[in-house]
Amino acid sequence: MTDFTAFTALHHRPGTPLLLPNAWDHASATALAAEGFDAIGTTSLGVAAAAGLPDGTGATRDETLLLARRLGRSGFLLSVDAEGGFSDDPTEVAAFVRELAEAGVVGINLEDGRGDGTLTPVELHSAKIAAVKAAVPEMFVNARTDTHWLGGGREAETTDRVMAYQRAGADGVFVPALSDPSAITALLKHADVPLNILYAPSGPTVAELGALGVSRVSLGSLLFRTALGAAVEVARDVRAGKETGVGAVTYGRVQQLTSRTTR
Amino acid sequence: MTDFTAFTALHHRPGTPLLLPNAWDHASATALAAEGFDAIGTTSLGVAAAAGLPDGTGATRDETLLLARRLGRSGFLLSVDAEGGFSDDPTEVAAFVRELAEAGVVGINLEDGRGDGTLTPVELHSAKIAAVKAAVPEMFVNARTDTHWLGGGREAETTDRVMAYQRAGADGVFVPALSDPSAITALLKHADVPLNILYAPSGPTVAELGALGVSRVSLGSLLFRTALGAAVEVARDVRAGKETGVGAVTYGRVQQLTSRTTR
Repeated sequence: MTDFTAFTALHHRPGTPLLLPNAWDHASATALAAEGFDAIGTTSLGVAAAAGLPDGTGATRDETLLLARRLGRSGFLLSVDAEGGFSDDPTEVAAFVRELAEAGVVGINLEDGRGDGTLTPVELHSAKIAAVKAAVPEMFVNARTDTHWLGGGREAETTDRVMAYQRAGADGVFVPALSDPSAITALLKHADVPLNILYAPSGPTVAELGALGVSRVSLGSLLFRTALGAAVEVARDVRAGKETGVGAVTYGRVQQLTSRTTR
Repeated sequence: MTDFTAFTALHHRPGTPLLLPNAWDHASATALAAEGFDAIGTTSLGVAAAAGLPDGTGATRDETLLLARRLGRSGFLLSVDAEGGFSDDPTEVAAFVRELAEAGVVGINLEDGRGDGTLTPVELHSAKIAAVKAAVPEMFVNARTDTHWLGGGREAETTDRVMAYQRAGADGVFVPALSDPSAITALLKHADVPLNILYAPSGPTVAELGALGVSRVSLGSLLFRTALGAAVEVARDVRAGKETGVGAVTYGRVQQLTSRTTR
């Protein structure tokens, strides 16, 4: 079984969505894999913020590829947040994704949202998807539309884009910021490929999303933002003389995760 | 006032130690600076684990320099964990520290512990310190001895090394894993330069360490290990259907920190 077959199969277990946690560096990825997550995603916000670069503006091509090389073939299935492919030339996007595949990446997210708050024209984004699938057929392309992410109330446009992207060859579709159960149910009538929803702490649980028919639930930047908040909170508590350090991973465990290579 | 003068002054406030939180990437550093920490350190464990490399073995020279360049001149005083200087040639160590200084780094930790669990000979470590101070007089050299870190019960050797390092020109001395108040008091009789202690959740508070005469308290890898633990815990909680996400920094706040340049 190829990685592509295995990863695709994780999207086809009715009622049991693939829960994809998103890492931003080697430590977070190996720690999540050690918790039993067979597939790990990356978060473009985490990758960008770790490097001190803006998210979603195409500034992190090098960092994205470096992370893919660090995490590829590490004993888990790896899906990379590739933003918009870091180019508006479908051939260049396909060449980038080929580099990711060579690093051992089995899936990508390819988004139509742009740094300036607009959407890539549907024809161009479809062309990117088609170019990637033609160049690397065994890459799971999760086509993300930011119709909701960049401001809601665009149900018709969301449906149009989801249908266009699956016609272009997308293996899955992803609509971040969509969390209303009835809107998810309505969209699922038009989705022939697995639907990915971004987990929201205030929204439905993974089980509830599974019952609706959602195939994949990703955590986006939530883990990265939680990690950052926890670090700052401990520094604040130490400064205030409060008891702290309860949730820390031990030094030895971190060393162990770093040297872990199971594949 | 130069950065060196300002950073040195933070070590000379009797009863009020400098609390130095340690970052591992741009996001953690800027988030800590935004909390009001005027000086930020780095953690070699965090830098190594983020890159998937072993800690304390001299493997992270490039990553250490890259992080220094990302964080230097960002509106806070930056002290970098330089392990053993990534060489046993004092001239090479000095050249590396000059590169750090050019990046805007005002302080370094230089440790005598080696990846194989032995200590660098005291004469060689003293020669590294002297070479660095000769090359970059305005670099605050915090000489770290791992006599306790690598196994306790070596009080006499600790005192000898602390005295040798301050004779060689160290601006401060650091004895991680030393946390017993009476042992700290005993060592302080021989320390003419500021003493740095590693904060331990089970040990004395910052205020208690200050009352003993400790000048600087660093958090080492605690924040990194806490961040990692918090991320894994949230992933686990989402999988289990538990409520989560309470401590996360918002997406907008992370973007704001990334674009923050106050200097």
